[in-house]
Amino acid sequence: MKEDYVVAILGATGAVGSRLMSELAYSEIPVKILKLLASKRSAGKKIKYQDQVIEVEEARPESFEGVDLVLSSAGGDVSKRLLPEAVKRGAVCVDNTSAFRMDPTVPLIVPGVNDEELVHHKGIIANPNCSTIQMVAALNPIYQKYGLKQIIVSTYQAVSGAGQSAWNEMLDEAKEYLENKPMKAEILPTKGDLHHYPLAFNLLPQIDVFEDDGYTHEEWKMIHETKKILLNDMNAPDLKVTATCVRVPVAVGHGESVYFTVNDSKATVDEIRSLMAQTKGLVIEDDPKEQIYPQPLNAEGKRETFIGRIRADIENPRAFQMWVVADNLMRGAASNTVEIAASLVKRNLI
Amino acid sequence: MKEDYVVAILGATGAVGSRLMSELAYSEIPVKILKLLASKRSAGKKIKYQDQVIEVEEARPESFEGVDLVLSSAGGDVSKRLLPEAVKRGAVCVDNTSAFRMDPTVPLIVPGVNDEELVHHKGIIANPNCSTIQMVAALNPIYQKYGLKQIIVSTYQAVSGAGQSAWNEMLDEAKEYLENKPMKAEILPTKGDLHHYPLAFNLLPQIDVFEDDGYTHEEWKMIHETKKILLNDMNAPDLKVTATCVRVPVAVGHGESVYFTVNDSKATVDEIRSLMAQTKGLVIEDDPKEQIYPQPLNAEGKRETFIGRIRADIENPRAFQMWVVADNLMRGAASNTVEIAASLVKRNLI
Repeated sequence: MKEDYVVAILGATGAVGSRLMSELAYSEIPVKILKLLASKRSAGKKIKYQDQVIEVEEARPESFEGVDLVLSSAGGDVSKRLLPEAVKRGAVCVDNTSAFRMDPTVPLIVPGVNDEELVHHKGIIANPNCSTIQMVAALNPIYQKYGLKQIIVSTYQAVSGAGQSAWNEMLDEAKEYLENKPMKAEILPTKGDLHHYPLAFNLLPQIDVFEDDGYTHEEWKMIHETKKILLNDMNAPDLKVTATCVRVPVAVGHGESVYFTVNDSKATVDEIRSLMAQTKGLVIEDDPKEQIYPQPLNAEGKRETFIGRIRADIENPRAFQMWVVADNLMRGAASNTVEIAASLVKRNLI
Repeated sequence: MKEDYVVAILGATGAVGSRLMSELAYSEIPVKILKLLASKRSAGKKIKYQDQVIEVEEARPESFEGVDLVLSSAGGDVSKRLLPEAVKRGAVCVDNTSAFRMDPTVPLIVPGVNDEELVHHKGIIANPNCSTIQMVAALNPIYQKYGLKQIIVSTYQAVSGAGQSAWNEMLDEAKEYLENKPMKAEILPTKGDLHHYPLAFNLLPQIDVFEDDGYTHEEWKMIHETKKILLNDMNAPDLKVTATCVRVPVAVGHGESVYFTVNDSKATVDEIRSLMAQTKGLVIEDDPKEQIYPQPLNAEGKRETFIGRIRADIENPRAFQMWVVADNLMRGAASNTVEIAASLVKRNLI
């Protein structure tokens, strides 16, 4: 294990970027030098990190000279263009975009679930999609103990997953709505798509663009990333997964209604709850009589995945349901990315 | 068929009450006299109905003397107390509360789905729960043609389903949130329960109180009402139904992510879409390439049920998914109630 690391954050000025910094400070990764990289537009901006003030630099291939570890969250195109340059210069990159997730040579990691795949890395490790991470984290102990046959998930996804500008747009729309003014939508559901619709006090059953089979790319990601993480094969037929992804007018914190069928007929709700309670990173909030269940407002700023409403499908002995909530910028992005990096450091893989 | 009817609206001053009036005016029911009934607190209030101004009266057993038809939406306790009195005086009552829905002698009706059950009425006909109506309306043509094996639904329910005061509370909370003030919650998730939580920019996986098995009463209603409407047996084992009901920060319009399995392996997405398109009251909004799908803001004020995102579960040949949206105060309450009344009139059952 090296004594200290030169770390670069790519996309330092975004909503996830600022959280990558605080998670890095919170982690046990020894940082010698921290470089903050962003687009030309943000270069020159000064950002406080612990007791230093760091000037943001424009991200270029040469920026990665001498860098050991890159934490990247600047969008898929930037990752595709710059991460191979970083790897060429000897850096190991943890990428929080979809650029490399489906590359069979790139490990797709949820710490605590499949860290052992890290040994196969070739310079780039992918952080899964936010909505995938919290579901897989919750399901992994069940999968390990009972086996999983099928997952049917409906998501309730916060606007911050679409970036800071979409988040601002929703807050502006909410103000307009409360003042009986028309709502202006120019970003959501997805930047660059044909039409834009207001999200405030509305529901948008579209996250990311549509595929030819009628699924959105977000749904596609949940299906194939889940299979890659749990079964190491993005098309594994043994576990059936399907998803409906919906954007809801919440700032931070994704909710998921997860229906799952296990292989082992002896699984019970009490056992499932206790298995999850024993798993690091999972917090059980499940006491209906006391009205205790996960809520996005309570999950904001937390690293854990919160699970409640665990119950049996009364008519299907091997089926269960649960309600999973996590901070999509923390558990679903910054915390997961930095935990992957910490796992790499601990395993001496950088 | 009578030439005209004395009609009473019970709960005339609520969010559904005002819509019952406009739906009654829109219907073909010939109204001779309209009586507006409410609690003592609202008595004396004057409300415009077409070219008349009608004074609200306190609802009492004697209020129903001479009344032919009662449209009721004043809460379950009021219905339980007053509708038997109305029936005793010769009125036929269409009740938009849960008071009589599970009574095996009371027809539970979605017009266009099971009107034929109206002939068995004994004075009271129940209007189903808002979230049940739109799902059953969408699924009925599929059920009739292919048979249904299983339904798994996750709901995204608007605050107006919890009443006008809950609706106001959420708007107040949204203002507080935008002004960085603490949010005050005294009503939601459910009046009279132990704890109250803010709904603005949040998600509450509790609608109505919890049952002993961990399901909420709202989920219980969706399961058993669906079976009663489609199979005429609230516990029918042939169709498995399960539900997760979540309150979302939307004013009007429930969304539903519905996963369903059919008996007939020859069903296709195109056939399902075309069957629905031919069904009165259903509107297909399903063109992913043009980003056309149902949204609560677009459904507000409409009588129809809007269906989109219809697609096959790629790994399960008999399973499909769809996204269903309807105005919970109109399709889920006032329109359905008045359509039941119109069906009674047409069938000469009053």
